[in-house]
This record gives sequence, structure tokens and C-alpha cells, in this order.
Amino acid sequence: MSKVVLDAIGGDHGAKECISGVALALRKGFVRPDQIVLTGPRAEVVAAMRAQNLTESVLVIDAPDILTDTDSPTDAARKKPRNSIMLGVQELREGRAGAFVSAGSTGTVVAAATLGLGCLEGIRRPAIGAIIQGEKNPFLLLDVGANPQPKVHHLAQYALMGSAYYQGTFGVAEPKVGILNIGSEELKGNPLVREARALMKQMPIHFHGNIEGIELFSGDCHVVVTDGFTGNVVLKVSEGLAEYLLRMVFGLMQKVGVEPQKMGAVKQGIMPRLDFTEYGGALLLGVNGCVTICHGRSTAPAFANAIRFAIRAVDAKVNEHIVQAARAYETPQA
Amino acid sequence: MSKVVLDAIGGDHGAKECISGVALALRKGFVRPDQIVLTGPRAEVVAAMRAQNLTESVLVIDAPDILTDTDSPTDAARKKPRNSIMLGVQELREGRAGAFVSAGSTGTVVAAATLGLGCLEGIRRPAIGAIIQGEKNPFLLLDVGANPQPKVHHLAQYALMGSAYYQGTFGVAEPKVGILNIGSEELKGNPLVREARALMKQMPIHFHGNIEGIELFSGDCHVVVTDGFTGNVVLKVSEGLAEYLLRMVFGLMQKVGVEPQKMGAVKQGIMPRLDFTEYGGALLLGVNGCVTICHGRSTAPAFANAIRFAIRAVDAKVNEHIVQAARAYETPQA
Repeated sequence: MSKVVLDAIGGDHGAKECISGVALALRKGFVRPDQIVLTGPRAEVVAAMRAQNLTESVLVIDAPDILTDTDSPTDAARKKPRNSIMLGVQELREGRAGAFVSAGSTGTVVAAATLGLGCLEGIRRPAIGAIIQGEKNPFLLLDVGANPQPKVHHLAQYALMGSAYYQGTFGVAEPKVGILNIGSEELKGNPLVREARALMKQMPIHFHGNIEGIELFSGDCHVVVTDGFTGNVVLKVSEGLAEYLLRMVFGLMQKVGVEPQKMGAVKQGIMPRLDFTEYGGALLLGVNGCVTICHGRSTAPAFANAIRFAIRAVDAKVNEHIVQAARAYETPQA
Repeated sequence: MSKVVLDAIGGDHGAKECISGVALALRKGFVRPDQIVLTGPRAEVVAAMRAQNLTESVLVIDAPDILTDTDSPTDAARKKPRNSIMLGVQELREGRAGAFVSAGSTGTVVAAATLGLGCLEGIRRPAIGAIIQGEKNPFLLLDVGANPQPKVHHLAQYALMGSAYYQGTFGVAEPKVGILNIGSEELKGNPLVREARALMKQMPIHFHGNIEGIELFSGDCHVVVTDGFTGNVVLKVSEGLAEYLLRMVFGLMQKVGVEPQKMGAVKQGIMPRLDFTEYGGALLLGVNGCVTICHGRSTAPAFANAIRFAIRAVDAKVNEHIVQAARAYETPQA
């Protein structure tokens, strides 16, 4: 079992929450102490570790350069090269760890991983693949934010990578792949989607065609391809809407006098289906390494799950599946 | 009070549902019989009217050409010019009615209205504006599907039109306008959004900047601008997700034994906030006439509300407000 590097100061809640997540992952047996490597400003990370009684055997790599919200990915690389993201990626590149997990700036993680690790053989651009609970099946939505302006052949490769990933992860022999569009008819959408759709029809995947927004959460398509702008907006709108709806529903239940224990049971039934922390993160598919991107809002349970998720992705040999798929079909560059 | 033309065979449920909607609108006093004009194949429309006891005083314009799902907007115009959409738009163009309402193909309504009526003075492309109930306020999302590939100056004009429309409809002096983006920082997003954002900062609107997907349903921004591809996907994903969530919640409530009357009370509390039929339709902003686009799935109550909505839009002089805003600020064509 290979090591997992965690960006110990990524995310909105800083080192305290990340390290609580590590402690939780250790308690739950997701990982052993000697498998964890942390990157971050040493004093801050060590203080957070002490608070969780994690003083021994967990390796800390000092990353004194602290990124702020205003640092662009370029700033991060040029002006603050000893940041927790770049040093984490470096552990992967140099073979000292098998996976990197970060809740830091998505743009910076994507840039650092793409430049630091390169793309997998045959893959031109990475995509972030988010696994979401649908009504019938979990489905993979990609890209949810690595590339807000992809080209046709990038979308085609998302279909290829997504299909290979879903197959390897959920054991579905021929995952159904759809492309998110604004209508069911062939000619709907913008040129990017129309051309990608035409290309996907010729690819060695189980291609369903267009999928409309209203069908997305049915989970009828296992893999849903979209550009990183639309995918990111869809993911975040869904998150905001789900929170808003549930706030309303539980508020109303309380108002009309539904018993607390029944409310609790409804909550327990629904939360696991909506919990965006269940997988803890989303894989950056297509880079030569296992990189898991977590939500900025991640709390300790999300970090613990992300560590487990990253280990499982390594064990499932996701990247080998992708390379095989890319070897079997060379995507034409339009 | 001017007349309203209704496409009597638009939508998934055909003439029966449209005409039930007219009957409902009449019973509720939203409109008088002599204010309603129907377009559609005469025999079919008259039969549906008879079933609702609407034999007198409602004018029917025979539109014998029936559009199918496979007819493109161009097909509709060239091969089937006597369809219910084109003849409805013609009533507006020739001044015999003040508003047109259709649940037919969005693409065909947009094309017929844009070509048939032209754009308002100073406006280059129309946008569909959907009013949605947010947590704090109703908000206007535009474009939700008129133009899946707009240019920077189109987005800028959506901001202008949306602001004028919201102001005129909800009486908010300076509606807060945001642009849907994948991050809060200035440089986030794709070039289209970045350039539109830079332009909007200089416009005579209360511009908030980027709004992320997760904030959309807060209703904190009164007007949210996006391209017609993203807007359509967001609207439909939200609809599908809301239905899925509520199905789950009510299923769980039943399972844990919440009393039927309490469940009914929760449903009654939540439905008006989510009901996409509340307004019945969305205005096609920017064309020289009042065109309301309804959901394909519209049922009788949605049609009745759409008729009321269209009359209110005419009364509120939405287009005059837009023309004034466009006169006050000439959008540079990048």
C-alpha cells in the first residue's frame, strides 16, 4: 500500500480540520500512520497534530510558502514554489507517494499536477470527475472544473476516461455515457457539444447521446460529459439547491409538528444520498498520478473519506484503465 | 387591455391541456373571452373548446401546419409557415394582439419572434428570462436558452434588460446583478465571462460581480446573467434535482410514519416555492413584442398562469423599460 500525501492547510478551515480528518482516518483504519505524509508550514501542522495526539510517525514536509485566495496558479508556481500543493505533487512525481489529496485552490492543484506530473500517455488534458448519487445509480460528472474552455477532442477524451474510470470503480462492463446538452435532438446545443457528440458516436464506448439537465440526477447515464464551466456551475448549483430545499423541508416539518425522532429518521435517510463528503473528493483524471481534489468546505469526515477514496483509486489502478482505453482508441484532434 | 394569443397546440399535452388552461384563466378572471385568440388546427382546437364549453366569443385562427419534434426552426418557417407559432407571432406583428404565449419548441418560438418582430431599439439579441423563487428574493436568470453561444456584448445587454425588467416587475430601484461564474475571483471563468464581467463593471447597473453556483438560489442577486447553454442546463438540472429530492423526502416521511395531514401541510408549504408553473412562463426579453415561453410540460394551471403573466408583462410595459435602459447606455460591440 503506497503513501498518501495530504495538503495539510488546504481548504477553508485550515490545518486543524485537515489534521482532524487524518486522525479520523487513522481511527477508522482507512490508513496507517506511516502511510500519511503532510505538507504545510511545519509549526502550524505540528501544532494541529499535537492537538490530535498525532506526534509520532506521521511525516511532515515543511511548506513555508502560504497561498492566499488572490494567488493565481502562476503566482503559486513562480513566487511561492514551496507551497503545500507543489511540494505534495513533488512527492508523487518523485515516486515517494502514490496519491495526493488537497482541498486547496482547484486551479492551483490542476496546474501544479498537470505541469508537475504530465498527462497520461495519449491524454491531452485532465478533467475533474465528480461521483454523485443519482436516483438509479451513482453517476460520474466530468469535467467539473479543470478546464473551463475545452476543445472537442478534450470532451471526447473525457468520455473515454470517464467510461474507463466508471468501469474500473463500479464494475459496470459498458457504462452508459451521455453528453450534457440543452435538448434531446441531434442538432441542439452549441458547436462544441454538437461536434463532440458526433465524435463520441464513433468511439468504442456505450454512447447514449444527449442528456438533458432534467435527467441528470436520474443516474440513468453512468457517465455525463460536459465542459468544466458548465460542470462546475451544475455541481455547485445542485449543492446550493439541495441545501436550500432541505432547510425549507425540515423547517416546515418542525413547523407542522413532525416528531423530532421521525425528522431525525428522514434526515438519516436522505443525508447519505446528498452528502457531497461521502467520497470526500473528486479525482483529477488524466494526469500521471493519483490526485484527489476536495471541496474547499471540507470538514474532518470529508478529509478522512478523501484519504480512503485516494487509496482506493490507487488500488483500483484507475490510471492503468485510462491508459488502456486511450491506447485502444486514438482520439482525432479536430 | 390588449389581446393574448395562445398557441393552442404547443407543449407535450396538446390542445386539450392548453384549452383547459384557457378555461381556467377565464374562470379565475385572469382574462375575458374576447381577449383570447387561439392558434392551431381549427378542428382540433374547436373540439377541445367544446369539451370545455368554450364555444362562443373566443377567436380561433386556423393553423393547419403541425410541427413535430424533428422540425427545426428553419423547417418550421420554410416548409410549414402556417403553423401555430408563426401565425401567433403574426398577430403581434400586425398589432392585433399584445402578447403571444406558447409552450411549443423554444427554438422555433425564439426564431419566429426574432425574425417576425425584430429586436427592440438598441438590443441585438433576445434572451429568455426565467423568474425563480430564491431563499431571500425571487431572482431572474437569463438567458435560459434563447442563444446557446452568445457574445460578450449580448451578455452585457442581458444585464441591462434583466435589470430593467426586474425593476419594472418587482419595484426594486437598483436590482443587484451578478454574472454566473465558477469562482468569486475576478480572473475566474472562461474569456466570455471574464470580458462580460469587465464590461458590466462600467455599466449603469448595480453590478455585484461573479456569483457562484452555490449562491444562486439564495436570491441574493436579483438578476443573474449567463449564456443560454449554461442557463438552460442550470434551470433543468434544478428542476430535476428538486423533483428527485422531494420524491425522496416524501417517500422517507411516509416510511417513518409521518401522519398524512402533516405531510400534506409540508407539501403545501414547499410546492409554491418550487412550482415552476407559478409564473407559467418566461419572457423572451428584447424582441419587439411580448412573447411568453412556457415549459413543454405545462399543464392547465401553468397555461392559466402564463396568460395572467403575459397580461401583467404588457401592463408593466416591460419593453418600454428595456428601451429606456438601452437608450441610456449604448453597449460597445467588442
